[in-house]
Amino acid sequence: MKEGATEEQVSHVVERIEEVGCTAHLSQGELLTVIGAIGDRDRVSSLGLEGAPGVDHLVPILKPYKLASAQFRKGQRTVIEVDGRRIGGEHFGLIAGPCTVEGREQTLEVARVVADAGAAMLRGGAYKPRTSPYSFQGLGVEGLRLLQEAKEETGLPIVTELMDVRDVADVIEVADVIQIGARNMQNYTLLAEVGRTGKPVLLKRGLSATLDELLMASEYVLKEGNTNVMLCERGIRTFETTYRFTLDLLAIPALRELSHLPIVIDPSHAAGRRDWVGPMSLAAAAAGADGIIVEVHNEPEEAICDGPQALPTELFADYAEQLRRVAEVAGKQVATV
Amino acid sequence: MKEGATEEQVSHVVERIEEVGCTAHLSQGELLTVIGAIGDRDRVSSLGLEGAPGVDHLVPILKPYKLASAQFRKGQRTVIEVDGRRIGGEHFGLIAGPCTVEGREQTLEVARVVADAGAAMLRGGAYKPRTSPYSFQGLGVEGLRLLQEAKEETGLPIVTELMDVRDVADVIEVADVIQIGARNMQNYTLLAEVGRTGKPVLLKRGLSATLDELLMASEYVLKEGNTNVMLCERGIRTFETTYRFTLDLLAIPALRELSHLPIVIDPSHAAGRRDWVGPMSLAAAAAGADGIIVEVHNEPEEAICDGPQALPTELFADYAEQLRRVAEVAGKQVATV
Amino acid sequence: MKEGATEEQVSHVVERIEEVGCTAHLSQGELLTVIGAIGDRDRVSSLGLEGAPGVDHLVPILKPYKLASAQFRKGQRTVIEVDGRRIGGEHFGLIAGPCTVEGREQTLEVARVVADAGAAMLRGGAYKPRTSPYSFQGLGVEGLRLLQEAKEETGLPIVTELMDVRDVADVIEVADVIQIGARNMQNYTLLAEVGRTGKPVLLKRGLSATLDELLMASEYVLKEGNTNVMLCERGIRTFETTYRFTLDLLAIPALRELSHLPIVIDPSHAAGRRDWVGPMSLAAAAAGADGIIVEVHNEPEEAICDGPQALPTELFADYAEQLRRVAEVAGKQVATV
Amino acid sequence: MKEGATEEQVSHVVERIEEVGCTAHLSQGELLTVIGAIGDRDRVSSLGLEGAPGVDHLVPILKPYKLASAQFRKGQRTVIEVDGRRIGGEHFGLIAGPCTVEGREQTLEVARVVADAGAAMLRGGAYKPRTSPYSFQGLGVEGLRLLQEAKEETGLPIVTELMDVRDVADVIEVADVIQIGARNMQNYTLLAEVGRTGKPVLLKRGLSATLDELLMASEYVLKEGNTNVMLCERGIRTFETTYRFTLDLLAIPALRELSHLPIVIDPSHAAGRRDWVGPMSLAAAAAGADGIIVEVHNEPEEAICDGPQALPTELFADYAEQLRRVAEVAGKQVATV
Repeated sequence: MKEGATEEQVSHVVERIEEVGCTAHLSQGELLTVIGAIGDRDRVSSLGLEGAPGVDHLVPILKPYKLASAQFRKGQRTVIEVDGRRIGGEHFGLIAGPCTVEGREQTLEVARVVADAGAAMLRGGAYKPRTSPYSFQGLGVEGLRLLQEAKEETGLPIVTELMDVRDVADVIEVADVIQIGARNMQNYTLLAEVGRTGKPVLLKRGLSATLDELLMASEYVLKEGNTNVMLCERGIRTFETTYRFTLDLLAIPALRELSHLPIVIDPSHAAGRRDWVGPMSLAAAAAGADGIIVEVHNEPEEAICDGPQALPTELFADYAEQLRRVAEVAGKQVATV
Repeated sequence: MKEGATEEQVSHVVERIEEVGCTAHLSQGELLTVIGAIGDRDRVSSLGLEGAPGVDHLVPILKPYKLASAQFRKGQRTVIEVDGRRIGGEHFGLIAGPCTVEGREQTLEVARVVADAGAAMLRGGAYKPRTSPYSFQGLGVEGLRLLQEAKEETGLPIVTELMDVRDVADVIEVADVIQIGARNMQNYTLLAEVGRTGKPVLLKRGLSATLDELLMASEYVLKEGNTNVMLCERGIRTFETTYRFTLDLLAIPALRELSHLPIVIDPSHAAGRRDWVGPMSLAAAAAGADGIIVEVHNEPEEAICDGPQALPTELFADYAEQLRRVAEVAGKQVATV
Repeated sequence: MKEGATEEQVSHVVERIEEVGCTAHLSQGELLTVIGAIGDRDRVSSLGLEGAPGVDHLVPILKPYKLASAQFRKGQRTVIEVDGRRIGGEHFGLIAGPCTVEGREQTLEVARVVADAGAAMLRGGAYKPRTSPYSFQGLGVEGLRLLQEAKEETGLPIVTELMDVRDVADVIEVADVIQIGARNMQNYTLLAEVGRTGKPVLLKRGLSATLDELLMASEYVLKEGNTNVMLCERGIRTFETTYRFTLDLLAIPALRELSHLPIVIDPSHAAGRRDWVGPMSLAAAAAGADGIIVEVHNEPEEAICDGPQALPTELFADYAEQLRRVAEVAGKQVATV
Repeated sequence: MKEGATEEQVSHVVERIEEVGCTAHLSQGELLTVIGAIGDRDRVSSLGLEGAPGVDHLVPILKPYKLASAQFRKGQRTVIEVDGRRIGGEHFGLIAGPCTVEGREQTLEVARVVADAGAAMLRGGAYKPRTSPYSFQGLGVEGLRLLQEAKEETGLPIVTELMDVRDVADVIEVADVIQIGARNMQNYTLLAEVGRTGKPVLLKRGLSATLDELLMASEYVLKEGNTNVMLCERGIRTFETTYRFTLDLLAIPALRELSHLPIVIDPSHAAGRRDWVGPMSLAAAAAGADGIIVEVHNEPEEAICDGPQALPTELFADYAEQLRRVAEVAGKQVATV
């Protein structure tokens, strides 16, 4: 309550709390009265007392997510396993591949290079969310087919994005991990559908989503009984314009405390330039990330999409090796080839 | 190019520009060389020279949107007309109603009050995007039915949100204006579907969307031949936590310069408190908005959703009257009852 | 405390609270324990329990400012009066003038125009904080002299910026109101000095200062016994780059609730363009601002500093008249000529 | 220029460019005309054409800083050396010590521990900028004396903050490196004074300062002939509230490209919690930082200021050792004890 709130205002708040079936708990200081509302989370959140007479502000105490919280698994960490590749807990995994599947040769060549360097999974987009309706929107089903071929040849599990609930059936035929892009982080109908597929999900943080909102979005997936969610930080929007986004690496220790879910960092989209991707990848591994998802291309200058941020295939083995050294300092096991 | 870029680096950039079918245009200062790439927008944007040797930075000159641009209509402004209610150009429209359709009595009572006070349209949500999967998600089809009834009784056109492409048919049976929420501003498949319905669209700006991105999102709708888009500013995410969002009213004169589309302000979600909604509504009208979309409730304390920010029905007529006075100072015609 | 915090962890927190001389107050829900620390503000804030074992997070309940708070004056609003010009409470004041004092003719001409149109005070910078050390830094003492002359001719009180504690004596000889710029909002030694002068202060909000920090900065002035502080919102830094800063008009009703101090809006620096200054000024008045501080120039294209955002003198009378009409709708008295 | 700009508007811009003594350079595409203004930096920046008729927007091409730019030293990196301790280029330096000098025992004990673990310099505040005027403001001259004693005992050079131009003489008697705090990054009179001392400067980035602004602030120091500036990223303000600030590690590779000055990271203030300081320090080293400045305390729970973020002395040696391993992967030499 505000300083100088009247008894009547205090009573009104207490009554309101009891009206929704909760218990009010008064705590009187010299200057202020604090009123606790104890009871069921949803009832408490239905109080609607913001801006009511004498009320200063409301502070939610219970976290709004349950299944995603570290407490839910009593401190045990979730490890996601796909075809023997593990991400989470002690296990560090490198997910690499082209931004977009552009053609057969490109996809297979990149897949071979990343497989040889010890990547855990292959990434590649068949459906691309593009800011402009005039930009290339992905090869669609044909792209999925090429990913399937790359998987057969290299054995790498596939991570690919789903944008439209109507493409679920096509995508899960090929995808081992379904990626939900940053722009769809709060597309709740898509999250629920993906939850129902039971497939592992890589959920990207929205450009301006708080960690709480990211965890709430994961809760939409978890609630459907799908416990295999990886949280992915890929850069947030700030006032700084030197880079495309500001990579928020403090999210790594913070999410590790809040949740049991594995944390994967995408350094490519924030950096926007390949020479900044290396330092940011090492930084993420040093900070304790469970994995990295990075863009690689055999001919970056010819890439249809986001070429400037793709690592060239010829530098990839060295990159992976450096990453391994740093992840080990941070206490992780990195699968080797 | 960077200071001290070599001739070879300059040549590489020029070659690359010519390779994609554009013309390079050199401009040499004492310290720097600037290279212009002249040609088709999409070709220019495929250059991928960020971070290339000697390149300092790239500056896009052409706006990425076409149909949404003020130039496209040669300075003429779009006026959206629904059942004789006009928003845009000289016409100011007030859209009001409950956040969520909760029941028959609530919906009809609010509808009558806002109709009597001269509102142009009735807003109300049947499908609600909620941060928590455990929160009330709207009455769905039953909510749409109640909106239909309110429309029949008051004659007010209906503005309601669509979240899922699979609900298009149900929603367009009732909606006169389809609302796309902030979280779905970059749900491109939804935007294209809505474009194909031909219904007027109220497109909310994402929490961290730039004006350019908002206009690009509108372009997804316009591209389908649907020219009736209203742009809606509803608060952006900043570091300030005193309010839920920071209402960005500079967007009004800026969007007016960039685009021909009408601009509507939602003061309720940013303020988060009803006593701050009034001042922000007047401010929006004073700044030249074409309309306001505001939440109203007959019993705000009992509202299922966002009660603290709803204007109570008993204050609505005064609110509408003040708004009218300010809109007139800003040079707008406001329909009266 | 976190879910599952042990008894030992709870005891540690309680002991720590008692150690600093406060009282601990336990409140036990089904899932969580909340511990209140009741006692002196400074003792409570010295607890240092962030990140301690079992602690989830700390929520400060007492506002950190006292003298600036609305409660301190029991709801009465501060009105600042300078030579019969009043700002605050019911009184709306327009402060206008050039960004920088460039010369005699410019200063006097602008002063006459704004005086004729009913401005309450004349603004003008003699010391200019510039991002670049190579930019014009103001005329200094000579600039102050010209402001003095303008004051003698028009009778307008002078608002001018102080940047360096060593210039206090020079500035207060001329200034009726001392302006503290946004970049110096947390220059605490300057704030204390200004407090000691007893002169009214116009304190600009830092580019990324929260309202709480702005009020804490004002507290540095008030603490010296100087109660005449005007709070000035001038745009905050966000991700949006269409304008120089995002003008945060929700600060008006929010500051009005938190504090008794008058609120003045500077629309010029955020807009950065004169055609956007008008709409933003009207918006500020409509939202209940107590005053506007705006840049005016007789030859904007020739201005040394910030010409593009200066209103030309020939449009000023109309601008002032429109502002008056809107301020009246918002319930303010505007002094007329 | 805008699409559809008239010939007259183009001519006006060309004339204006020539009026200020620059050369105009037209480049005509199918839709747009781009006009280059070639000439002296300051003349170009005095154009004032924002918002002029037909003008779409202005793009500055020349960087506003000269002495801080990487080009100024033709790619050679600045190495700052104090008593044989080097930071910059290949040299990684660890600066550690208490937030505030609280007393003799605390200061000496922390100094010994960090010296033993191989720290390059000792940090400690005698003057503290505090958000609240009621908080402890530092021991002042007595604090400086204690730092002097710690230096004599351990041989560590001293890094300490200067806030007020009137304290310069006192501070430089003890300080080997003068720290300018984030809140004073744009306190230009202070920067110039510090520049004139010739002492190395550790310049902290403001909470919402862009990298360009940080470099411009360093330019104020460099311009006085003082070339020993370290740039320090310490967290920026964003919408995320889980941590105090968002540590922006992309600043490391970006500043390395823009400037020759060494880059030091302060992980303590952003994290706000000691268990997050370790991961962020390793991340900074992995990303290529030239140094870390970190807070250490012998009894963190009793610290007067920022205790929760201080590393306890007993963990410091391990921390320093891990940091060394990561810095080596990133290609740095770390001085050992």
